[in-house]
Amino acid sequence: MSKKLVDIIMGSDSDLAVMQDSALALEKFDVGYELTISSAHRHPSKTSEIAQNAAVQGKKVIIAGAGGAAHLPGVIASMTSLPVIGVPIFTSSVGGVDSLYSIVQMPRGMPVATVAINGAFNAGLLAVQILALHDDNLFQKYRNYRIELAEGVESKDRKLKEKGFRRYLEEN
Amino acid sequence: MSKKLVDIIMGSDSDLAVMQDSALALEKFDVGYELTISSAHRHPSKTSEIAQNAAVQGKKVIIAGAGGAAHLPGVIASMTSLPVIGVPIFTSSVGGVDSLYSIVQMPRGMPVATVAINGAFNAGLLAVQILALHDDNLFQKYRNYRIELAEGVESKDRKLKEKGFRRYLEEN
Amino acid sequence: MSKKLVDIIMGSDSDLAVMQDSALALEKFDVGYELTISSAHRHPSKTSEIAQNAAVQGKKVIIAGAGGAAHLPGVIASMTSLPVIGVPIFTSSVGGVDSLYSIVQMPRGMPVATVAINGAFNAGLLAVQILALHDDNLFQKYRNYRIELAEGVESKDRKLKEKGFRRYLEEN
Amino acid sequence: MSKKLVDIIMGSDSDLAVMQDSALALEKFDVGYELTISSAHRHPSKTSEIAQNAAVQGKKVIIAGAGGAAHLPGVIASMTSLPVIGVPIFTSSVGGVDSLYSIVQMPRGMPVATVAINGAFNAGLLAVQILALHDDNLFQKYRNYRIELAEGVESKDRKLKEKGFRRYLEEN
Amino acid sequence: MSKKLVDIIMGSDSDLAVMQDSALALEKFDVGYELTISSAHRHPSKTSEIAQNAAVQGKKVIIAGAGGAAHLPGVIASMTSLPVIGVPIFTSSVGGVDSLYSIVQMPRGMPVATVAINGAFNAGLLAVQILALHDDNLFQKYRNYRIELAEGVESKDRKLKEKGFRRYLEEN
Amino acid sequence: MSKKLVDIIMGSDSDLAVMQDSALALEKFDVGYELTISSAHRHPSKTSEIAQNAAVQGKKVIIAGAGGAAHLPGVIASMTSLPVIGVPIFTSSVGGVDSLYSIVQMPRGMPVATVAINGAFNAGLLAVQILALHDDNLFQKYRNYRIELAEGVESKDRKLKEKGFRRYLEEN
Amino acid sequence: MSKKLVDIIMGSDSDLAVMQDSALALEKFDVGYELTISSAHRHPSKTSEIAQNAAVQGKKVIIAGAGGAAHLPGVIASMTSLPVIGVPIFTSSVGGVDSLYSIVQMPRGMPVATVAINGAFNAGLLAVQILALHDDNLFQKYRNYRIELAEGVESKDRKLKEKGFRRYLEEN
Amino acid sequence: MSKKLVDIIMGSDSDLAVMQDSALALEKFDVGYELTISSAHRHPSKTSEIAQNAAVQGKKVIIAGAGGAAHLPGVIASMTSLPVIGVPIFTSSVGGVDSLYSIVQMPRGMPVATVAINGAFNAGLLAVQILALHDDNLFQKYRNYRIELAEGVESKDRKLKEKGFRRYLEEN
Repeated sequence: MSKKLVDIIMGSDSDLAVMQDSALALEKFDVGYELTISSAHRHPSKTSEIAQNAAVQGKKVIIAGAGGAAHLPGVIASMTSLPVIGVPIFTSSVGGVDSLYSIVQMPRGMPVATVAINGAFNAGLLAVQILALHDDNLFQKYRNYRIELAEGVESKDRKLKEKGFRRYLEEN
Repeated sequence: MSKKLVDIIMGSDSDLAVMQDSALALEKFDVGYELTISSAHRHPSKTSEIAQNAAVQGKKVIIAGAGGAAHLPGVIASMTSLPVIGVPIFTSSVGGVDSLYSIVQMPRGMPVATVAINGAFNAGLLAVQILALHDDNLFQKYRNYRIELAEGVESKDRKLKEKGFRRYLEEN
Repeated sequence: MSKKLVDIIMGSDSDLAVMQDSALALEKFDVGYELTISSAHRHPSKTSEIAQNAAVQGKKVIIAGAGGAAHLPGVIASMTSLPVIGVPIFTSSVGGVDSLYSIVQMPRGMPVATVAINGAFNAGLLAVQILALHDDNLFQKYRNYRIELAEGVESKDRKLKEKGFRRYLEEN
Repeated sequence: MSKKLVDIIMGSDSDLAVMQDSALALEKFDVGYELTISSAHRHPSKTSEIAQNAAVQGKKVIIAGAGGAAHLPGVIASMTSLPVIGVPIFTSSVGGVDSLYSIVQMPRGMPVATVAINGAFNAGLLAVQILALHDDNLFQKYRNYRIELAEGVESKDRKLKEKGFRRYLEEN
Repeated sequence: MSKKLVDIIMGSDSDLAVMQDSALALEKFDVGYELTISSAHRHPSKTSEIAQNAAVQGKKVIIAGAGGAAHLPGVIASMTSLPVIGVPIFTSSVGGVDSLYSIVQMPRGMPVATVAINGAFNAGLLAVQILALHDDNLFQKYRNYRIELAEGVESKDRKLKEKGFRRYLEEN
Repeated sequence: MSKKLVDIIMGSDSDLAVMQDSALALEKFDVGYELTISSAHRHPSKTSEIAQNAAVQGKKVIIAGAGGAAHLPGVIASMTSLPVIGVPIFTSSVGGVDSLYSIVQMPRGMPVATVAINGAFNAGLLAVQILALHDDNLFQKYRNYRIELAEGVESKDRKLKEKGFRRYLEEN
Repeated sequence: MSKKLVDIIMGSDSDLAVMQDSALALEKFDVGYELTISSAHRHPSKTSEIAQNAAVQGKKVIIAGAGGAAHLPGVIASMTSLPVIGVPIFTSSVGGVDSLYSIVQMPRGMPVATVAINGAFNAGLLAVQILALHDDNLFQKYRNYRIELAEGVESKDRKLKEKGFRRYLEEN
Repeated sequence: MSKKLVDIIMGSDSDLAVMQDSALALEKFDVGYELTISSAHRHPSKTSEIAQNAAVQGKKVIIAGAGGAAHLPGVIASMTSLPVIGVPIFTSSVGGVDSLYSIVQMPRGMPVATVAINGAFNAGLLAVQILALHDDNLFQKYRNYRIELAEGVESKDRKLKEKGFRRYLEEN
């Protein structure tokens, strides 16, 4: 894998099943990353070390996922000048609205780029878009990905029209 | 004022109008406190210094108020073993539900004792209740306060019954 | 078990699966407790007896859990000067937001220290933090617990880095 | 005024501006009532006395209004066998949804007849409907009231049709 | 069964599993009832017939349950002078908050006595409380029921204290 | 004015300030309408008469606005085969979410075409779109309206670019 | 099948299980339709082509279903003068409230006729109601459908009354 | 002003009072921008032109603000490979939660970097952080800005400690 440009951090290994999607998105574009478990609350010193070292180590973007009182993305944002992307993790009590509010409602002066609840894949894509601003090769790859998305829609629509919705639903 | 046993911390001076109620509650019981502006996001090192020094300085309880992605109470809780009381500040967008979720929904291992939205006065009372567990004088004062609360209800009810609701509403 | 310093009260045995976490947290720190079923609504006299006797019996903190129109913590708070910790229980209809509001939105003069929805373990920890203010041994144990939390994060992160996320997810 | 059949109770005189509507509704039907300030939290013994004495004193229905962690109606319901009508009071933070949940989400075994947020007038009407079940005169009055409501709609509609909406809005 | 004093109406047979609880509550007190499926939307004329005939047939209370845009209780209330109790049915999309708002937020002049989401049992109890106002025998039965509730709490608490929470949870 | 093709109905004259927008939208396209106050709850017979006569009188679309437990659109829909457009009116307690749920969450078999909270103007436009399906002249007018909307955007953008945002804000 | 008068569009084949209900509703009335997968985000050009061609191809109504940031109905509405019916799809995080807001809260000038969360069947019925305004045969069919709905209620009620609720629940 | 690297787009001039904050943030760092009014719904062709031309014109980041069914950011994101930052605008009905959901809950494949409700200033800062990844001078400026934020906190705290909270509140 190429140089590690993205930190992916989550507060607990229970978030890994969701947060792996960020890694998968980055792998799709051959963007190197480092995956770390560190908790804003249970291990503040480790979290602050990661945040403060990221730029020095050559990281360009940090993706942080957390649920509930999801402080991790904001805490990291407060200790780095790199752009931080926050992933609100679904919670069984209020469906992730707690996580969303805790991540997106950051005060003036300290943004976190928030994606959808459990939107870790999109967090990876957003990192790619940012990195692609100065990497023409990556920019081209991203455009191709978007074309593939459109073709995927086209092909499903064709299949639906051939089979009709009854057979389509049976077979899928 | 007596020894400073309580830290009252807020993220911004815009929270002072609410957070002064914690100070007023403590003054009512002659409990010493220190009032500080420090932001979890805009000044993480100051915040961490306060949290880490509180116990050493003889503080017993920390009250922290914040609004929106209200990380301050949780961030402080992660850096001290003292009990932390969190005050969710009202926000014009979602009425403080964002602040409430960001403060109360803390992960296993790291509690924040949360009071009502804008409930800074109650945060002060809760600190008093905690301190009173080993201060008989304070415990007695708190019981008296509770008796006064009941008498206040009694006296308003008497007034209502004397005047009737029409006059009561006109005169109040 | 040592002296019973904490009352753990729940409105119904259907809350026991959640509320046992408070007991488990206290046992971890060898803090004695008494576990009681009593309903604010179905058995108000028993509830008021418990609340009014707690201080006399040497209890220092009361933990109360309830769901829906979760009056139990507030009702107890109205009849004791001890600090009361409230645990909002998850409800299938609105996910425990009803319980949370009913517990946290207490009026001026009558705080309940509220923890997360189903956060009974944290309620136990908060009781420990309060008791530890005048028990150096307990304070030290609590600090050690916090170090263990950090080590747990460290060890999971090491494992993740050794195995990579794919194997980690398969094996866990 | 005739015999006092209805208790109207509120937790604080700040609720009086809303709760007077219950009194006004009852006065409209010449139903006697007693208006009381008593707080479930600040004065539990007074509240319990009122609840326990209501039936003995010949009260038939209790109307209780409260805001936030609005325990008053439920606490009263737990100490009387009379039907209790709950009025959730508007709150500036979450608009009275906290009050509504705290009143309506009562556990199995202990109903509170809940009306709309700030719906104190309807609480009075509901009390009238209940009392009218065994008072033919009152039942007839209530039917007449309903006819008046319909006539009020009729007359406003006529006025709207005569004037057109532009003049109607200017003049009202 | 004795004279039918209560109408229990639901909009669809899919609500029957919840609404049977109203019937069970009434049976417990030997109060006669009539159980009907009628939809405010799919069969407005039947619904209006039921509402308009209820008083004539000697019904005293109407219980109506509905989910989603739950108009049934309000529509019935608009066509009778009898007290109407509304049961908001749980919905998979928003957990019954839609049903609750549609039932409880009735306009001035037209109350519906609303109980908890899926609170059909309590709806039955509320009907009993209303009927008991002029039926001493029923009033006594209701008081006994309340004593049984308290005894149920007592007995569960005794069992918990005998067995400890671990065995209690295993055996229940 | 031309033939009355649209019924605009509201439950109360307090909704007129919002609902006049439906009239204004229809006037813009020279579509005739009839404006009526009728309440689903306070005057069910008038409401049902309007609903049942609409088609006979040559009405093609019914617009109904209501707030809170906003039953009017659904009740009308249950008594006509014409398409019914519902306008949820803003409420001070929950901002119109109650009205929205009460209107949009209609059961299978009985749709109400719901527009935004206070979206009475759009309700009028939707009626125009429906009527325009068989009125080429009206269809052309509607397309022109859409072009005007785009030109309005264009002209504001030009103005913004000429003046810069500081002057634009001062002057507007 | 007869002439295709209705476009049914969904953003993803994962919405097909819900959106087939629109097709089933239209088939019930022998109304021709075209079912298409096209995404506002992943394939904007296809979406815009469909929207712009719909009127030319003789389509009269467009039904569009989407979940989450459910832009599809609004995006289509912005590119056609035909009436657009929006179906908010249930989401696991916030139950479809996100979809509902994204579809119903359209700005002035651009309505989307919104139905209930997952209300695709009703979307089909609404299309039928609109088409029936100029098709007497279809209007008659729709009236008959409504009569069948009422008869369905009648027959279930009869069955309930014959069997009693216990047997009814066992057998269904 | 230097080269225009950022597009700031809003759907209506009513959003300008909020969205000017993005411009002010960029001006603070001497980052060139272009401010445009264009509506996803009222002028889709202009919107699509802007989105498709942005990269060609040398823009690096697009900031888009919208309220209600806030489609603008997502629609733009679907037509460019540049990173898009979305600003949910406050709405009087649901406080901007509609805008937030419509912007943040984007489907897999199409991220929008969402900031707080009315968080246009932070949107500007996030753009700066992204641009600073390849502009050392800008990166240094951003770090300095962060130091200033901390100093601002420090200075307010000093002032608070000098004056005490009573005088601080009077003078501010």
